[in-house]
Amino acid sequence: MRMNESERWSDKPEESCGVVGIAGVQAAASYVWYALQALQHRGQESAGIATVKGDDMVVAKGMGLVSEAISLSRVRGISGDMAIGHVRYSTVGASSLENAQPLSGKYLRGSLALAHNGQLLNTDAIRRKMMLEGALFQAQTDSEVLTHLLARPGFGSIEEAMAQAMTELKGSYSLVALDMDRIVAARDPYGNKPLCLGAFKGGWAVASESCVLDVLDARWIRDVEPGEIVTLTPSGIRSVQGVKAERLALCAFEYVYFARPDSVIDGVSVMESRNRMGRILYEEYPVDADVVIPVPDSGIAGALGYAHASGISFDMGLVKNRFVGRTFIKPSQAERLQAVQLKLSVCGSSVEGKKVVLVDDSIVRGTTSRQLIRMVRAHGAKEVHLMVASPPVSYPCYYGIDTASSSELIAATHTRKAIREFIDADSVCHLSLTGLRKSIGESVGVCAACFDGSYPLGFKE
Amino acid sequence: MRMNESERWSDKPEESCGVVGIAGVQAAASYVWYALQALQHRGQESAGIATVKGDDMVVAKGMGLVSEAISLSRVRGISGDMAIGHVRYSTVGASSLENAQPLSGKYLRGSLALAHNGQLLNTDAIRRKMMLEGALFQAQTDSEVLTHLLARPGFGSIEEAMAQAMTELKGSYSLVALDMDRIVAARDPYGNKPLCLGAFKGGWAVASESCVLDVLDARWIRDVEPGEIVTLTPSGIRSVQGVKAERLALCAFEYVYFARPDSVIDGVSVMESRNRMGRILYEEYPVDADVVIPVPDSGIAGALGYAHASGISFDMGLVKNRFVGRTFIKPSQAERLQAVQLKLSVCGSSVEGKKVVLVDDSIVRGTTSRQLIRMVRAHGAKEVHLMVASPPVSYPCYYGIDTASSSELIAATHTRKAIREFIDADSVCHLSLTGLRKSIGESVGVCAACFDGSYPLGFKE
Amino acid sequence: MRMNESERWSDKPEESCGVVGIAGVQAAASYVWYALQALQHRGQESAGIATVKGDDMVVAKGMGLVSEAISLSRVRGISGDMAIGHVRYSTVGASSLENAQPLSGKYLRGSLALAHNGQLLNTDAIRRKMMLEGALFQAQTDSEVLTHLLARPGFGSIEEAMAQAMTELKGSYSLVALDMDRIVAARDPYGNKPLCLGAFKGGWAVASESCVLDVLDARWIRDVEPGEIVTLTPSGIRSVQGVKAERLALCAFEYVYFARPDSVIDGVSVMESRNRMGRILYEEYPVDADVVIPVPDSGIAGALGYAHASGISFDMGLVKNRFVGRTFIKPSQAERLQAVQLKLSVCGSSVEGKKVVLVDDSIVRGTTSRQLIRMVRAHGAKEVHLMVASPPVSYPCYYGIDTASSSELIAATHTRKAIREFIDADSVCHLSLTGLRKSIGESVGVCAACFDGSYPLGFKE
Amino acid sequence: MRMNESERWSDKPEESCGVVGIAGVQAAASYVWYALQALQHRGQESAGIATVKGDDMVVAKGMGLVSEAISLSRVRGISGDMAIGHVRYSTVGASSLENAQPLSGKYLRGSLALAHNGQLLNTDAIRRKMMLEGALFQAQTDSEVLTHLLARPGFGSIEEAMAQAMTELKGSYSLVALDMDRIVAARDPYGNKPLCLGAFKGGWAVASESCVLDVLDARWIRDVEPGEIVTLTPSGIRSVQGVKAERLALCAFEYVYFARPDSVIDGVSVMESRNRMGRILYEEYPVDADVVIPVPDSGIAGALGYAHASGISFDMGLVKNRFVGRTFIKPSQAERLQAVQLKLSVCGSSVEGKKVVLVDDSIVRGTTSRQLIRMVRAHGAKEVHLMVASPPVSYPCYYGIDTASSSELIAATHTRKAIREFIDADSVCHLSLTGLRKSIGESVGVCAACFDGSYPLGFKE
Repeated sequence: MRMNESERWSDKPEESCGVVGIAGVQAAASYVWYALQALQHRGQESAGIATVKGDDMVVAKGMGLVSEAISLSRVRGISGDMAIGHVRYSTVGASSLENAQPLSGKYLRGSLALAHNGQLLNTDAIRRKMMLEGALFQAQTDSEVLTHLLARPGFGSIEEAMAQAMTELKGSYSLVALDMDRIVAARDPYGNKPLCLGAFKGGWAVASESCVLDVLDARWIRDVEPGEIVTLTPSGIRSVQGVKAERLALCAFEYVYFARPDSVIDGVSVMESRNRMGRILYEEYPVDADVVIPVPDSGIAGALGYAHASGISFDMGLVKNRFVGRTFIKPSQAERLQAVQLKLSVCGSSVEGKKVVLVDDSIVRGTTSRQLIRMVRAHGAKEVHLMVASPPVSYPCYYGIDTASSSELIAATHTRKAIREFIDADSVCHLSLTGLRKSIGESVGVCAACFDGSYPLGFKE
Repeated sequence: MRMNESERWSDKPEESCGVVGIAGVQAAASYVWYALQALQHRGQESAGIATVKGDDMVVAKGMGLVSEAISLSRVRGISGDMAIGHVRYSTVGASSLENAQPLSGKYLRGSLALAHNGQLLNTDAIRRKMMLEGALFQAQTDSEVLTHLLARPGFGSIEEAMAQAMTELKGSYSLVALDMDRIVAARDPYGNKPLCLGAFKGGWAVASESCVLDVLDARWIRDVEPGEIVTLTPSGIRSVQGVKAERLALCAFEYVYFARPDSVIDGVSVMESRNRMGRILYEEYPVDADVVIPVPDSGIAGALGYAHASGISFDMGLVKNRFVGRTFIKPSQAERLQAVQLKLSVCGSSVEGKKVVLVDDSIVRGTTSRQLIRMVRAHGAKEVHLMVASPPVSYPCYYGIDTASSSELIAATHTRKAIREFIDADSVCHLSLTGLRKSIGESVGVCAACFDGSYPLGFKE
Repeated sequence: MRMNESERWSDKPEESCGVVGIAGVQAAASYVWYALQALQHRGQESAGIATVKGDDMVVAKGMGLVSEAISLSRVRGISGDMAIGHVRYSTVGASSLENAQPLSGKYLRGSLALAHNGQLLNTDAIRRKMMLEGALFQAQTDSEVLTHLLARPGFGSIEEAMAQAMTELKGSYSLVALDMDRIVAARDPYGNKPLCLGAFKGGWAVASESCVLDVLDARWIRDVEPGEIVTLTPSGIRSVQGVKAERLALCAFEYVYFARPDSVIDGVSVMESRNRMGRILYEEYPVDADVVIPVPDSGIAGALGYAHASGISFDMGLVKNRFVGRTFIKPSQAERLQAVQLKLSVCGSSVEGKKVVLVDDSIVRGTTSRQLIRMVRAHGAKEVHLMVASPPVSYPCYYGIDTASSSELIAATHTRKAIREFIDADSVCHLSLTGLRKSIGESVGVCAACFDGSYPLGFKE
Repeated sequence: MRMNESERWSDKPEESCGVVGIAGVQAAASYVWYALQALQHRGQESAGIATVKGDDMVVAKGMGLVSEAISLSRVRGISGDMAIGHVRYSTVGASSLENAQPLSGKYLRGSLALAHNGQLLNTDAIRRKMMLEGALFQAQTDSEVLTHLLARPGFGSIEEAMAQAMTELKGSYSLVALDMDRIVAARDPYGNKPLCLGAFKGGWAVASESCVLDVLDARWIRDVEPGEIVTLTPSGIRSVQGVKAERLALCAFEYVYFARPDSVIDGVSVMESRNRMGRILYEEYPVDADVVIPVPDSGIAGALGYAHASGISFDMGLVKNRFVGRTFIKPSQAERLQAVQLKLSVCGSSVEGKKVVLVDDSIVRGTTSRQLIRMVRAHGAKEVHLMVASPPVSYPCYYGIDTASSSELIAATHTRKAIREFIDADSVCHLSLTGLRKSIGESVGVCAACFDGSYPLGFKE
């Protein structure tokens, strides 16, 4: 809820995390290391791995990209046939190693570690109640409450503790916990965050996205069901329904922007859904133009859809400087303009004298779009139409996505006409919510709260 | 001449360097900092900036990306209205700060600094001769000899010293030198490396590629001519012919792979030339297929050309993990396979059950291609045809490009049939040299030594 | 219990920690920072500070010396009129930030932090019991159990919780805890670790040693009594007897080696006690010699005492290289000898042709002594007598001191004659235990377990 | 010439450098690494080693202590039977790796490297002349000019080039140069900086101080003579007189403060000379007192001399915090006082109710002395007499010592009475220059310019 242009490079929402768990292969930690690489787009602030063998649990965490946070040579040296991992999203400033996951602790049955993607809504009350019984917490985070819930006495196993916790918890979560002898993965009853299951070489994997499975040469089995608990051990997997499933409310932004295009989530190919968003966008807003140009990289699939549907020529008229990014320091006010230009350049020959359709997956504050359109016009474009392959983001997310605050959301503060004037496009068109649902398909119920203000999982208590 | 798959991530040739010089704006060093960002693709090993004001020359250099090597806040603090900069290519191992440029020194007329892109061929003899006169060198590099040549007594100005040096030098060079009161830029008589000139806000810029000018909001003026010396001062530019121009022999790989697509070199748009390489590739090798897929990012323009020419549908069926790369540690033999998979993933829906045309800009050793084709087949492609938008690389480069040694060049050691078998494609087709020349256009003479073994600038002495 | 010559530079026992608490001055954290400097000799592995103001508790910890671990400029920026601090001893290898103190957590009444010097003996059982009630621990340390004990519900204040904890705990502890509104300091019923109280500028301080008070320009008040709990707030101090005091059993090694000579512990000046050790050592073992030479720095006071008592001339014949030490890497077997020589050198003119008395405060393994004597002989000494100003260390410590294991203690494995032969001295004499007690004085009961095997606080449960 | 109290911890002059050269042992570089440890007191800013084997010269340099600047494991891996080394003194601020020595370069006969202790006075003119012949310098230092002089053509060997250079040079230098096949060591005609020669295990060593030889288990041979050139090769040493010797003018401060007490310089034991300074100080200024206390560490030898001569009891009443120092950050004005207290503490029992003689080796600005006396009085001393074992420092040094500027030298700006009042001592007495000369002995001619303003080597040209 705190992104603003002066702190962020990206004018996009930010995902919270990615999780993974692997059981049944020797040196499972090094497999997790590779798996986290494939989830890196879900978080670049910190990365962590926990692994167990016999009586010992080892947790390695660090700041930055997986490859910076955790030395592969160190990970290679850790044997053990079960491990879990986590990547956390990148913020500027208040990030710290203490918030890196997996969280871990020692409890009745040994050690446990936990990796969480999502946002819990009622942990304040639970934390208060546990403190009255003498609990000592390290931080104020919702995820830490989960570790205490799993450590509670009176359960025969961690699955039982998890099932009980799920009846008490409210909010979104896909999580993976590691105990001395098993990995337990669970998805909230609305399935708000993705989580899928795979098998390979006699081992088992659970991960936020199916793109992980490809890196492991693993075979996709299925998605974890809403409310389900899946237990992975070196010798196999088993499943129980931890809590009654509600209607599926997967975060729609997974298809729009977060997930990698090669992932398949709840049965739908992300790439294909994005293609359809572009196609339907053309159906909703056919424009007469000479060229369709994506804002790379996230606008490419939608732009291809728009181009195919319209028959208009597709071109990579915007070039991305792949070296600018994470290490770039915060630009001064005067250098802001240059900053966007450093990141994206216009290929003059692609736009000069042409009517251009620019396709982006989403816009949040509109400032980057405005600058891009200015640049495209400066290279001689006759017209510039901005096609956005998702509906306007008008409401904040309470389920773990870091969008701008309402006062910064251009769609919440400007009329459609005012938006067009602000970014100085010949036209600005958003995909309709109906069009978005159609692109994703009937089979997948989505949470579209940021588009329509309807919050299926409720609010913070 | 020393790349091999075990040390490099990229199965591509590597460029030596990028250079830039800016005169006439306050805080010229910070402009150079931004300009180097736009040349970052030409070298990631080290970066450096030299700037001068009054009697003082300041040189800031460091390892890694520009943003890692040189703190912008430090650069902002340096006033001075002339500055030059350099980025050096990335190698594993023997790289060191001592080799970072600009090289600098104190001589008769104050301080000088020099940034060089290219490879000199006769510096051993020159160095030997200067040592006999008492010269003391810091290193064994060809570029350092240039600084000594410029420091020689008996010349009224640095242009005169440069003109004299150019009559003695052999080899490729685009270089930018900074003196106490001027910047001198020169291009070798064959124009083997690119160098262009721009103007902005009462200031002047010279840079390896025109994409720099966009970042500076500068206006492109023209390319520096082969053998020309251009002098930039805060009050204007002037030009002399330092040495008689030979026929233009610009490195063809600038169009094929090195240069950024939004650059225009010697009058030809890099993006458009790559598009034409794809079109002509289709004319030379028309394949009946369902989808054209580029190997990102360098194969995109060629693939679009092939798709447009053929009418076959274009799709981004390979997804690049933009976080894997520079910081990744050298994988063990067993992890090599996984390494390619981490970097590139196949989007199953794009290839399943289809006849696929895969377009890459070039192949050097073939190992990456082989792995990609294996991955595409694993996702259910019926056929995979590899279209390479440049001729086979069969000869080493002596002019500053780090290709594999001859024994590693697949085109030098394998027949066309053996290549196809090695990478296990249904067909492998290279653009012809004639097709390449046609794509670039008649107006630009190119050095195609790595393709045809004909070396216009001669050999090392 | 794990020191050995290959890992350590020092052939001395190692202290566990130093603690400090300050209340009543603005920016109390920066006072603690200075105070920790004065306790630096008690631990160089890590340092930490916790401070509180209003609702907020801030904890800053780091590895290494205080000045490396915690930036003074950061500490200066933290307001708040109460703070505590901790330094931890230096080990090679398994040290880590997670073990750095103060430990902290959030509990019923806000946040708490704790700094502990000593070793608890029955925390395994307490931890087990608390786990059965759902407690989640971060580590396996005895100190963490203390934080959980203080967080238990059912007490009106942290003093009450502390008093209850003290009735359950066994072992040695001088500890300082910080709550939202007070600092609570406690000393175990045997007073095994030192802890003293001071006042300054309307503020109050509690610290392991009185040398801290000098740095703060504070006035010494008294030592904390065995079993006492002292509460410090900005408005004053108060005291309760937390648990009945047993007979005082202060660690004798505080006088022999650990404490700084300018400290006064339980009423006895450390410097004077060491002087007396040297005097009595002469009474017990009068040697006819030409010069008395200390092994610097810890042997100086004893050597002065020996010289004064005997009338033999005192000289600094061994010179310490003050730069060798912490940053020095582990020497290879072949380089071990050189290593001692790097650290200590012989001043030839002080020993040549002379009968030398070498005075050290203690010897553990004897390897350093052997090497020193070899060096002194090489510079021409006629005789070398090693006088050790403490009894032979023959038993391990269970109360927080890291001596060598029994198998490494030369006094535990060698006869007096064999020791003399091993280190090749003309004579080797240890102060008697009676002499040690006399040096310290009747007023202070000491734990001499490492000398006589009698363990007043009992054993680990 | 730029030390001031706000930047420095030490109120002492600072030495420039230490040099060492070793020939004839395998892995000579690792011997040099150990030797530099023994010279660490002569410079802590940077350290460097150059070694040669066959055609290859390797130079390793870094900032900080030897053990921080150069990894021993790296040095161990370098074979080669000749090596030289250098340590450079510590300044705050403008220090940088570029100024670290050995300086090196490639010239006619291969590579050369050079380590220099001292200060040249006429290099501006020499540099200018060489630039007119085309020389290119890296920096503005006097030492770099030496490397160019050695690289000049027309000499049969580096000794010849050195001999010629010595006829042209003016100023102070003890230097060690490494060529492809020999080490050449030279001392200026006044012998202003120390340099001695040793032999060990079939190898040879040259070093700034004889304490190096002990660490190497080497045997002292003799000092290098003023104006002498000594050549070391693996097979032996030889000597020529490079330039006619002038009268010996060794820096007197070597005995007073710089050199390690266990060194013997030009035939005189440093420790013994300091003892004599204390004795003669008592003869010149007998005080009736109860205790003699040194300011550690540099005042110890003088204090022992004073105590022995007077029969007054000696005590270590000031305790040094050995952990405070290099890493300590610059204290704010308000914290200055505390800073001295952190570094040195008073042992109350040593001074309470006593008449105290405080002995320091030298005072420069007087600020530290003032603070110490305040502290000693605060612990109850009845009288405090400051005895300084060297004459007042009243003049700047032009030969490589960094004293305060004249305006900061208390002896240059205050009368004796005013000094006493400023530091608030009952008396302040300096050793007379005659007394100093007597302490050092007739055999050694010294440069006492900082005491008497008479500059034997002349001034900067």
